[in-house]
Amino acid sequence: MTTLTTLTTTSHRDGIVRGCPSTMGHDYQLNTTTLIRHAARTHPEQEIVARRADGGWDRYTYRDCYQRVCRAANALRGLGIGPGDRVGVLDWNSRRHFELYYAIPGLAAVLLQMNLRLGVEDLGYVVTHSQAALIFVDESLLPVAESIAPHVPGVKGWVVMTDKPLSEIRTSLAPLHHHEDLLAAAEPAIDWPMVDEHAAYSACYTTGTTGRPKGVYYSHRAIYLHSMSVAANMGMTLDDCTMLLTPMFHGQCWGLPQAATMMANKIVLPGCYSVEDMRPLADAIMAEGVTITNGAPAIFQPMLQYIETLPVKPDFRRLRMMSGATEPPLPMMIGFHETTGAEVVHGYGATETTPLVALNRLKPTLKQRLCAEAAWDLKRKQGLPVCGVDILLLGADDQALPHDGQAVGEICLRGPWISTSYHDMPDAADRFFNGYWRSGDVGTIDTDGYVKVTDRLKDVIKSGGEWISSIDMENALLGHPAVRDAAVVGIPHPRWQERPLALVVLKPDRQATLQQLHAHLSKTFAKWQLPDRILFVDAIPKTGVGKLDKKVIRAAHANLYAGESPG
Amino acid sequence: MTTLTTLTTTSHRDGIVRGCPSTMGHDYQLNTTTLIRHAARTHPEQEIVARRADGGWDRYTYRDCYQRVCRAANALRGLGIGPGDRVGVLDWNSRRHFELYYAIPGLAAVLLQMNLRLGVEDLGYVVTHSQAALIFVDESLLPVAESIAPHVPGVKGWVVMTDKPLSEIRTSLAPLHHHEDLLAAAEPAIDWPMVDEHAAYSACYTTGTTGRPKGVYYSHRAIYLHSMSVAANMGMTLDDCTMLLTPMFHGQCWGLPQAATMMANKIVLPGCYSVEDMRPLADAIMAEGVTITNGAPAIFQPMLQYIETLPVKPDFRRLRMMSGATEPPLPMMIGFHETTGAEVVHGYGATETTPLVALNRLKPTLKQRLCAEAAWDLKRKQGLPVCGVDILLLGADDQALPHDGQAVGEICLRGPWISTSYHDMPDAADRFFNGYWRSGDVGTIDTDGYVKVTDRLKDVIKSGGEWISSIDMENALLGHPAVRDAAVVGIPHPRWQERPLALVVLKPDRQATLQQLHAHLSKTFAKWQLPDRILFVDAIPKTGVGKLDKKVIRAAHANLYAGESPG
Repeated sequence: MTTLTTLTTTSHRDGIVRGCPSTMGHDYQLNTTTLIRHAARTHPEQEIVARRADGGWDRYTYRDCYQRVCRAANALRGLGIGPGDRVGVLDWNSRRHFELYYAIPGLAAVLLQMNLRLGVEDLGYVVTHSQAALIFVDESLLPVAESIAPHVPGVKGWVVMTDKPLSEIRTSLAPLHHHEDLLAAAEPAIDWPMVDEHAAYSACYTTGTTGRPKGVYYSHRAIYLHSMSVAANMGMTLDDCTMLLTPMFHGQCWGLPQAATMMANKIVLPGCYSVEDMRPLADAIMAEGVTITNGAPAIFQPMLQYIETLPVKPDFRRLRMMSGATEPPLPMMIGFHETTGAEVVHGYGATETTPLVALNRLKPTLKQRLCAEAAWDLKRKQGLPVCGVDILLLGADDQALPHDGQAVGEICLRGPWISTSYHDMPDAADRFFNGYWRSGDVGTIDTDGYVKVTDRLKDVIKSGGEWISSIDMENALLGHPAVRDAAVVGIPHPRWQERPLALVVLKPDRQATLQQLHAHLSKTFAKWQLPDRILFVDAIPKTGVGKLDKKVIRAAHANLYAGESPG
Repeated sequence: MTTLTTLTTTSHRDGIVRGCPSTMGHDYQLNTTTLIRHAARTHPEQEIVARRADGGWDRYTYRDCYQRVCRAANALRGLGIGPGDRVGVLDWNSRRHFELYYAIPGLAAVLLQMNLRLGVEDLGYVVTHSQAALIFVDESLLPVAESIAPHVPGVKGWVVMTDKPLSEIRTSLAPLHHHEDLLAAAEPAIDWPMVDEHAAYSACYTTGTTGRPKGVYYSHRAIYLHSMSVAANMGMTLDDCTMLLTPMFHGQCWGLPQAATMMANKIVLPGCYSVEDMRPLADAIMAEGVTITNGAPAIFQPMLQYIETLPVKPDFRRLRMMSGATEPPLPMMIGFHETTGAEVVHGYGATETTPLVALNRLKPTLKQRLCAEAAWDLKRKQGLPVCGVDILLLGADDQALPHDGQAVGEICLRGPWISTSYHDMPDAADRFFNGYWRSGDVGTIDTDGYVKVTDRLKDVIKSGGEWISSIDMENALLGHPAVRDAAVVGIPHPRWQERPLALVVLKPDRQATLQQLHAHLSKTFAKWQLPDRILFVDAIPKTGVGKLDKKVIRAAHANLYAGESPG
């Protein structure tokens, strides 16, 4: 165990050791201008294919794209944008958005990602907190921009992204510029500045369930290294074609646009699409030869359903689908494989981690060892950490836990693309530990190296210095034949810190007692972990999106143990 | 052309632009400890297979390897080695050598690569110039170490790498330590320092045809980024098995050991092998399932010859062979493909460039456009620059030339893994230009982005402000039916700077005149490029390894144009 502890606890406490100087200079900066310039220089003929609002497709090349990037950067300079300025973008996955991914940061300005799913109040807060000076907005999103405009007095101008002439645009936004007019008037070449690799490339605000959105400002270095890691770990080559399904307005589309640019992939931009109609996307995968894409199960699930209706199933054997946000359902992963040959690759990360932390690939050594069923089961884990991300499994007593598949700790992360602070938010120090970001996820790491997230830390029950997973206990209760629904929360206890409380909804005409459920839970839980009380209820409080509302449950029963003795 | 010029001339002259601070910290260092720790932590069961001196194979895992790396680092500390110290290694591609690749730099000490092909004088110079304090030497190379020992008084100790007990080793080296005894006595765990990414990881001395060896000191950052680039550009995945054929004692085996560690490849170490007997290596490729290897054509050519003798040809369809040092012969590339299915991938680089600059992969757009013959011909080029390496094609007047496949310039290189100086050699400033390293190679870059090296700058004829390729002209002369051998050199000329002089050996019983050869050359050369004089000789001076000895030819005819008018 000594070696393992060493593996996970190397800290900054000794500082950085200098050694002997190398003969490689310090000047060359890792920044995103290198990516698009490389693509344009070495792969000028490679295609970028973008879906328009009318459903048609535009085709152009890295050469043309790069020229528009240069024009956009010159236009931004003309509007007074310079190093350190923040520029918002409110758009779908369009080619103009893709161009701004390089034009804005290329000037050492910061691209503010504007999550168009946020409410007016939060979106206004993000714009104001970031001090955005200028905002690009797609014509279809003018109403969103207009709704926040009164709340963002710091914004000095708006640029409308449209194929129509300015005279046909009706909006209250002012002063208003026209994207294509700006580009047409700008020079097609630029002498880029050498942007410091530690300068912010873009900003994305996380929206937790509590408190104000928190600003994550990605460095150029983070994006550059992350691109190399995505490319290497997804096995991206020149021959790949990447379709960007994850929104580019949050978490920079998981860094896939930059990785695809670095590897000069053909890129497919789907524009604004709806999960109600997956036909255009599925058709594009086939027609364009897409081999890599990304998205949440909420997007992939309806795509599979659509494909299942097709009389002739498409051949997606070269397709790897990076799936994130939540654990992909096993039937969906199996469905894609059996219907099309595509592989769903579960990835793990967060806004604060750029986001790649782990990818679920099956090790060659396990291919020999595992039967098909066990191999599928393994795919539900969060995967293998990629090189460059250090994981510290932090126990209740702030000690490093072993990677034995048993010990449950908070997943803390460190690396060149992991946050070490939030922008302009000094009181968030409790989110960090000794240079690591505290993810708020708890889980295990098994001896094969696979990460498994078992719970959110706030939903874990901390009892007597140990942790009990509320999700595991809920799943165990749901495994009892009489139980229809279940929720488990931690209730403050004067002696044990917290004790689990279970709420159970029984199936119609079924019965179960505390003793019977205890006996059932005892198969997988120790005696001290069993809930002292189980409340049989008619319904469990849920949030608007159907998740268990544990905040409400905890509040309703907060004083359950108030009268108990602390000793 | 404006855009192209911009692409190639972005310089440091504006300095580094800072922008807005990111929320990713600056502390995390890109160093090689991360690579081996990641492999041991996440892929402990992955195998490393190493060939012993007796021809047998040792098998162990990253877990065991990492423990030996930790022990070696602790042993080094025990011998007084610390940050900045230089430690030499004189060994074949062995597992001890592989372990020292991480143990020495892990302490912020510098691994001095000792090229065992160098003469006593040069090797002694390298050890003394680098101020190496300690040298590891394989038992089989004790005679080499003993020959340099009298010339390296700064060396404070020697470590013999052997499977035998110390009592069986006979050597004059003193003080002498025993590698395995040191490891056995050392702790198996270590709290690694956080090594500055700009600190030197290893040192390798280049041996040009003139002057003393020059020290290239690779930074940890260079090695780390280079590993990511090799992994991404070779499409390395977890499923790959890498055999390290290129010597680990020069140019760190082209960075393949570190890339393979980063991607947790199974690794095959061939130990000391001979091109006279390729059977063990070819057998290992088959038995171990090798999918990636590297080497010079001088190694691959005899391997192909051996394979061609086999009654049943092996299936190497997954094998990619990185070929460097010189241009791989086309028949060899075709031979491997047709006989085994393996792909020879031509790579371009130098000691000063870590070395990856370009890799010859066929673009997907060219797969459609080129016929089979043209595709094969393309594979003889040096390939596509990888992302992160900037190429400046520098003309005779120090101006950037376009990438049009026509303009011939010196290939100048810049990037995080490209040298910007030589160690302790301030008078080498003429090897650098505006932050770029001058490679001394001249060539072209075509509109598809492929680099083609046409000549060494010193062999190019500089006439009237333009360049004439001596190699192109020699090849053209060799294409004439009467010509058996040819050499072309530049001779100083008072007016034109230089003029080409051709030496030609005719085939027996064949005749050719100056006028006839001019007519032949005029198919591909302009009139002003034609050699004013062609000397018909019986033999052309050659060097010991059979190359044209242009130094001797130039000296013999240096005064040919001395009497010409300068105006």
